[in-house]
Amino acid sequence: MDAEHDTKGSYVTKGQEFNRDTNYITDRILDDPQAEWPVEAGRYRLIAARACPWANRTMIARRLLGLEDAISIGMPGPTHDKRSWTFDLDPDGRDPVLGIERLQQAYFARFPDYPRGITVPAIVDVPSGKVVTNDYNQITLDFSAQWRGFQREGAPDLYPEALRAEMDPLIKLIFTEVNNGVYRCGFAGSQEAYEKAFDRLFTALDTLEDRLADRRFLMGDAITEVDIRLFTTLVRFDPVYYSHFKCNRNRLSDFENLWGYARDLYQTPGFGDTVDFEQIKEHYYIVHTDINPTQIVPIGPDLSDWLSPHGRDERFGGSPFGTGTPPEAPLPHDTVDPAHTAAAWT
Amino acid sequence: MDAEHDTKGSYVTKGQEFNRDTNYITDRILDDPQAEWPVEAGRYRLIAARACPWANRTMIARRLLGLEDAISIGMPGPTHDKRSWTFDLDPDGRDPVLGIERLQQAYFARFPDYPRGITVPAIVDVPSGKVVTNDYNQITLDFSAQWRGFQREGAPDLYPEALRAEMDPLIKLIFTEVNNGVYRCGFAGSQEAYEKAFDRLFTALDTLEDRLADRRFLMGDAITEVDIRLFTTLVRFDPVYYSHFKCNRNRLSDFENLWGYARDLYQTPGFGDTVDFEQIKEHYYIVHTDINPTQIVPIGPDLSDWLSPHGRDERFGGSPFGTGTPPEAPLPHDTVDPAHTAAAWT
Repeated sequence: MDAEHDTKGSYVTKGQEFNRDTNYITDRILDDPQAEWPVEAGRYRLIAARACPWANRTMIARRLLGLEDAISIGMPGPTHDKRSWTFDLDPDGRDPVLGIERLQQAYFARFPDYPRGITVPAIVDVPSGKVVTNDYNQITLDFSAQWRGFQREGAPDLYPEALRAEMDPLIKLIFTEVNNGVYRCGFAGSQEAYEKAFDRLFTALDTLEDRLADRRFLMGDAITEVDIRLFTTLVRFDPVYYSHFKCNRNRLSDFENLWGYARDLYQTPGFGDTVDFEQIKEHYYIVHTDINPTQIVPIGPDLSDWLSPHGRDERFGGSPFGTGTPPEAPLPHDTVDPAHTAAAWT
Repeated sequence: MDAEHDTKGSYVTKGQEFNRDTNYITDRILDDPQAEWPVEAGRYRLIAARACPWANRTMIARRLLGLEDAISIGMPGPTHDKRSWTFDLDPDGRDPVLGIERLQQAYFARFPDYPRGITVPAIVDVPSGKVVTNDYNQITLDFSAQWRGFQREGAPDLYPEALRAEMDPLIKLIFTEVNNGVYRCGFAGSQEAYEKAFDRLFTALDTLEDRLADRRFLMGDAITEVDIRLFTTLVRFDPVYYSHFKCNRNRLSDFENLWGYARDLYQTPGFGDTVDFEQIKEHYYIVHTDINPTQIVPIGPDLSDWLSPHGRDERFGGSPFGTGTPPEAPLPHDTVDPAHTAAAWT
């Protein structure tokens, strides 16, 4: 993402609640040779900044499912200007596959007058250079359901048919109250809007804290899509949302269950190995000049505890991958700089 | 205080370190009938906003020493404009004794062209309406040494002759590295200045953490002036400095000894009963528009732990007041709104 700002580049509108623009390019890549965008290995490129929680979902699902060979990945840097994410981490500032400097170019290739925010994640059709979709709600579900033919051996079923009736409301709760809830706190344009947002957020977190008191993962013994969705907000909570978005009733690390759960996931291959804490902090603190005009990026917090034992395996049993297996280590180009990980604090 | 801003009202100067203007009105009130400003009960009024750590020192010392009858107190509200603290909490917005709306008036009564910041604490000579001193480094030492004739029975000796050689360097360390150190982080005008300031601050806190590993208070078994000086920064650390000033390697509550020590003091009559957490948060988050332009005041953090047992009495023995006694409860006009205390979170 980062379509949180308005057309003038402001994130906060004085006197107003924060309202996310949820209009996306909703095309889908389908397991159907007749589809406009059929699944096809090597054809699509996922553009997904490490900083962004919405993009982080797609990185985790891609890793867990072993779609690295089928869907390549391009990584814009942590900061961007008011118009677009940019490929400033790449040689010459260009994505090596798409050859573009600004993600905006792929949006404009598709819609020359594209009027909304230039967001990640976005999936780009490599031959045409056009964005196919930026609908982060659907992308990971389709990685699970449409790309089965390209998933690794031992890939988990992250969106099992039998559980969808229970998962869908949970996905909605996590989206409106938590994933977007932290933004509603941080970009509140009035004290009243902030206080309402704060109550909603912590009410939801308390509900999830309770849910995790008697099961290892949100749906029980194994990880699913809902865990990915909650994790990406939790991992940013203490480094960013607590202070920068004023989500400070307590830290993540003050919740017994959520904190153990978040560490359990962080220590699971496919989750923690996608997390770049430095890019995360740089993104929020440098881009949101509305709320951090100095653009100074905090050094803390100490992250070493992310690697501490969580005890949830002994307590609840279960196995993150169920009858499957964990993914192998990420490829070198897809590996987080060790200096940007929790290990750097130990 | 709040002379942290420059003449244009800015707290942060881009590219620069924060430098505190330490020029004060250094007149002293002395235990000498021939002095220009002799000690005299009822003659002077202490102006001391609850929000301000520098003013908080004087409130604590006045309470511990029982100087309430000798030196009256006036309380500006938590926020102020670029020019002055104001008596906006008082009926008609005027200090009931001095009859002024803005503390600036007492500064101008003394020096019509007073060029520097209008700071608290300030001691005003009631008959003339003139500021005598705003030298917060000296004010509390003089409460101890010059006002002995007016102190309560059982008042502690906060600045004992025999300990001064050890106390003075500690006072200096606490001032430059901690009291001012948090401001140096918060008002840093560059990433480099912030990172230097952050290292200095946590180096000093680690030193003090070690010192408190084998003694109950900084000078041993009883409270002294140095404890007052450290306390006023510690009590603001998690509610304000951690997030607002980016002092976030860890919270105060993550330090074993400093956190137990801070709670020990908070629970000691004369310390915690001067602390108004709501005024503290409002002051920093509303006044410093340079670093919090939305002026939204965080709801958290949860403060209930301030009242939890600290165990330092059992561990180290000692007694805060030595051979003396604790002060009685504050008078009604000098009592913090219960809704603004840690008890409101329990």
